[in-house]
Amino acid sequence: MKLGMIGLGRMGANMARRLIQGGHSIVGFDPDPDARKALESDGAQTADSLKALVESLPGPRNVWMMVPAGDITESTVGDLLALLDSGDTLIDGGNSNYKDTVRRAKSLAEHDMHYVDCGTSGGVWGLAEGYSLMIGGEPAPVEALRPVFETLAPATDQGWGHVGPPGAGHFTKMVHNGIEYGMMQAYAEGFAILQHKQEFSLDLHQVAEIWRNGSVVRSWLLDLTARALDENPTMDGIAPWVDDSGEGRWTVAEAIDLDVSAPVITLALLERLRSRDNDSYSDKLLAAMRNQFGGHAIKKE
Amino acid sequence: MKLGMIGLGRMGANMARRLIQGGHSIVGFDPDPDARKALESDGAQTADSLKALVESLPGPRNVWMMVPAGDITESTVGDLLALLDSGDTLIDGGNSNYKDTVRRAKSLAEHDMHYVDCGTSGGVWGLAEGYSLMIGGEPAPVEALRPVFETLAPATDQGWGHVGPPGAGHFTKMVHNGIEYGMMQAYAEGFAILQHKQEFSLDLHQVAEIWRNGSVVRSWLLDLTARALDENPTMDGIAPWVDDSGEGRWTVAEAIDLDVSAPVITLALLERLRSRDNDSYSDKLLAAMRNQFGGHAIKKE
Amino acid sequence: MKLGMIGLGRMGANMARRLIQGGHSIVGFDPDPDARKALESDGAQTADSLKALVESLPGPRNVWMMVPAGDITESTVGDLLALLDSGDTLIDGGNSNYKDTVRRAKSLAEHDMHYVDCGTSGGVWGLAEGYSLMIGGEPAPVEALRPVFETLAPATDQGWGHVGPPGAGHFTKMVHNGIEYGMMQAYAEGFAILQHKQEFSLDLHQVAEIWRNGSVVRSWLLDLTARALDENPTMDGIAPWVDDSGEGRWTVAEAIDLDVSAPVITLALLERLRSRDNDSYSDKLLAAMRNQFGGHAIKKE
Amino acid sequence: MKLGMIGLGRMGANMARRLIQGGHSIVGFDPDPDARKALESDGAQTADSLKALVESLPGPRNVWMMVPAGDITESTVGDLLALLDSGDTLIDGGNSNYKDTVRRAKSLAEHDMHYVDCGTSGGVWGLAEGYSLMIGGEPAPVEALRPVFETLAPATDQGWGHVGPPGAGHFTKMVHNGIEYGMMQAYAEGFAILQHKQEFSLDLHQVAEIWRNGSVVRSWLLDLTARALDENPTMDGIAPWVDDSGEGRWTVAEAIDLDVSAPVITLALLERLRSRDNDSYSDKLLAAMRNQFGGHAIKKE
Repeated sequence: MKLGMIGLGRMGANMARRLIQGGHSIVGFDPDPDARKALESDGAQTADSLKALVESLPGPRNVWMMVPAGDITESTVGDLLALLDSGDTLIDGGNSNYKDTVRRAKSLAEHDMHYVDCGTSGGVWGLAEGYSLMIGGEPAPVEALRPVFETLAPATDQGWGHVGPPGAGHFTKMVHNGIEYGMMQAYAEGFAILQHKQEFSLDLHQVAEIWRNGSVVRSWLLDLTARALDENPTMDGIAPWVDDSGEGRWTVAEAIDLDVSAPVITLALLERLRSRDNDSYSDKLLAAMRNQFGGHAIKKE
Repeated sequence: MKLGMIGLGRMGANMARRLIQGGHSIVGFDPDPDARKALESDGAQTADSLKALVESLPGPRNVWMMVPAGDITESTVGDLLALLDSGDTLIDGGNSNYKDTVRRAKSLAEHDMHYVDCGTSGGVWGLAEGYSLMIGGEPAPVEALRPVFETLAPATDQGWGHVGPPGAGHFTKMVHNGIEYGMMQAYAEGFAILQHKQEFSLDLHQVAEIWRNGSVVRSWLLDLTARALDENPTMDGIAPWVDDSGEGRWTVAEAIDLDVSAPVITLALLERLRSRDNDSYSDKLLAAMRNQFGGHAIKKE
Repeated sequence: MKLGMIGLGRMGANMARRLIQGGHSIVGFDPDPDARKALESDGAQTADSLKALVESLPGPRNVWMMVPAGDITESTVGDLLALLDSGDTLIDGGNSNYKDTVRRAKSLAEHDMHYVDCGTSGGVWGLAEGYSLMIGGEPAPVEALRPVFETLAPATDQGWGHVGPPGAGHFTKMVHNGIEYGMMQAYAEGFAILQHKQEFSLDLHQVAEIWRNGSVVRSWLLDLTARALDENPTMDGIAPWVDDSGEGRWTVAEAIDLDVSAPVITLALLERLRSRDNDSYSDKLLAAMRNQFGGHAIKKE
Repeated sequence: MKLGMIGLGRMGANMARRLIQGGHSIVGFDPDPDARKALESDGAQTADSLKALVESLPGPRNVWMMVPAGDITESTVGDLLALLDSGDTLIDGGNSNYKDTVRRAKSLAEHDMHYVDCGTSGGVWGLAEGYSLMIGGEPAPVEALRPVFETLAPATDQGWGHVGPPGAGHFTKMVHNGIEYGMMQAYAEGFAILQHKQEFSLDLHQVAEIWRNGSVVRSWLLDLTARALDENPTMDGIAPWVDDSGEGRWTVAEAIDLDVSAPVITLALLERLRSRDNDSYSDKLLAAMRNQFGGHAIKKE
């Protein structure tokens, strides 16, 4: 089918390519001309404005946004609301907060437009391996997009599904990322323990390779960990600085709102915050307290 | 090759079967005659005592123990020390504490016997899919066992490896299980969050299936989780009681000994302890404290 | 000075009494006539409506709200906005979220009214021992209320302070409660460890009493813990159910917003959530997973 | 009474001084002649060897060890076993592991000697304010030492107690320190949150002072925190490096052995480990994983 793709960054461009390879027709838009040019060479038509993109699509239109969550998504939705017609469908494939999605879906529904949220997992590997798609929305527009989902997913009938009403897709993706944080932290801690056990001089890449086959902890994240350990087993030159993209925070907040105790996902987030605080005020104060009551020496900075 | 297998429970019997299917010749021993009989029907020779087993093997012997860690392993090693000859190799494929393994290997070395520790992962699926084997020991006896490892592993050159000196195999398996705890807890928390989000009426089995293909959190544990959710999505009849087998505790203790902060693995263990304490004294005391300072009502038991 | 007190529950009535005992003149309002009558017998004037209360105070008025945070505070502020005059001061002594306080202060400032937030700690003991007061607001109205703070606090120059602009008082009180959660949990866990060490048959009340004098962990919360352990050392009849009033949640959310890793305060909150979830879905799923991969028995409900 | 004091460091010397001030007669020993000389000037008799100390005491003797836990305590007990007579009492006032204490008490009992363990809290403030004493041992020797305990404690009948058989004192002290870790971490996290809330420009020392009077979180540790914040509110020059003395580790291990989930005490320990790991391998690996699956940038070291 013919689909508009807004946002031709790492994720959006790859998804457009996978769709083109699957026989779909893509009109891409990105404010960066180089990004548009790159996609044109892969067979896409492009537009140099949202307006041009909308005008190049036959109605009822399907427009997929793959732009950063937050302000850019908000303004893009606002702009499209003025450009799209009733009956059109707007898909948010990014990592939006599900509460924003619920609100936006209501706003579009008032104009008889459809809003579909598609939590998208797969990272830079999705182009080759397919994406895992968690889809929220009304049944009709989701069903209409079936050919698109079947192409983006790893297989026609695998790795994608309509999980619930608008917001349910982004909610599910949010929790997916919370789990991801916990799993990553579990691996990271385990390999750190192995790495500190100097008496055994373990080869961490070898261990990861062994575990990849037949072990209980085998996973795709372990496959990637094995790659990382192969390339750089000592992690030389990599700062112990772990960013977070927001979905972990939302998962923690949501769990607390739901009265669900999720200590592992929560701690995985806190460890990321901690990784970026090399000058911890709390640790300094602890050292000062120990000095106050026990006369324990303070290490100077 | 010809190998003695001591312990024909769920793990030992399946490993014996996989070895037989791979062309090896097995002499099995278990105190339970039914277990012996069952394995005989799968093509193994059996012995009704450790002594008989040892005598039925040509020297230098290879004897694999697949018995519960702790007292039973300790007494079995003691018994075999009196029965084996110099040059023989004893393999511990169970979940022994690596410190015991180091000690036992030294003890056997004094009699010119070899001790090989093989951390074994794969559970009840190993018979069909192969086991992940983390092997510690001296190079010569490990190399001599290569045909056995190649058969037990998922593939000749995959899923097994000689990771270090005696103890290194069990150490690596211990950390493997610590990671397993963390991953399991991450999934469990994530699905609990989904389950509590009643407004979206999510189908947890469907979500697991979507994630199994293309998502960042895809893994073998997720495959099994999907099975569990397919069979019983509401977890009806299952008590919220999570056992632990000891390796998680050792991982936590080892991490602290190594000055490695491993909060996610640690919390995953603590959650298991918590699952078995329905009558938490600390929670009662918290309720009593709140009543003391704020007059907050106490819920009666 | 003459002060209006809105909300004559446990906290408000006791604060009014302490003010009366300190020579202030109180006009109290509560929708419950019994609450009004009780305070009258302690020497307060009362009013049967907000309007009557406002009219009974000379300008510029000082009106102290001691009502539940959230909707009731919101509507009370709204009602008073229509009744008060420019130059009047409204004090929120409850546990409002500091973000609401910042918003309300701006709203009142537009009418030339003052808004003072007073984080109040001390619980049911405050009447006798005085309250700890963390005060936010503009300098002038805070200074005008000095006589009130000097009376409510444990001593004229102790236990109260103007900590910053509107919201700073409630913010500080919020963090105070987060710390409180952490300390309570630390004590509760420690006493639970002592209680489980059956071989020493420790008398927990005796231990608490010993610690109350000279130990590093002596504190007012320990004094109360000792009382609770004296009254009911086995915690008989108390359900392991720990409520939370919201400030812990806000503290956790705020810490994450500020990129501060606060694992102990966070875990203290999660333990409270956990205490109220006797039927943990995550624990059930963990048990089901263990059964899937290792054939481990599931405990039936 | 007349008492031998072995170990005249910060703790032992101060305890000897408090005993002398209370009318007791002290014979002190320390390998450091300066430490002996310092105590002589405070009115103690000293001895230049364990043998000389033992010979200078009338039987049945009471000898108090205030030496570092571990090897030094072990060797001192061994030396004294050869010097003391049946009926003599040896007191370990240090932070020994209770399991060692149980073992040592048995060993002395075989020689009809008594072993009393005295968990001692109070730090450098104990000289002036008295020590909190948690005492384990047989009833008779503990009772015989009553005059000593009454002097060391803050008051004759406060702050000390015989809590159980040998080992119970050190066990109780161990848990005390676990609670201490949790409380300290709770305060440290709370003040870190306040410190990061730059929009309110909070004066942390002022906040601590307010809380010291009337608040729920008032405590001796808060008194000390207020001192530390007064001296150095920005914690300038203090490295975020928090040591630990071992008792926290034992508490965590003991809690797990007892199947008690103690997340706050445990996390408080892990945070200390974390404070000393500026080059976290796990954080580096997390950054590498994120790069692998999502192409997220790695911060260079």
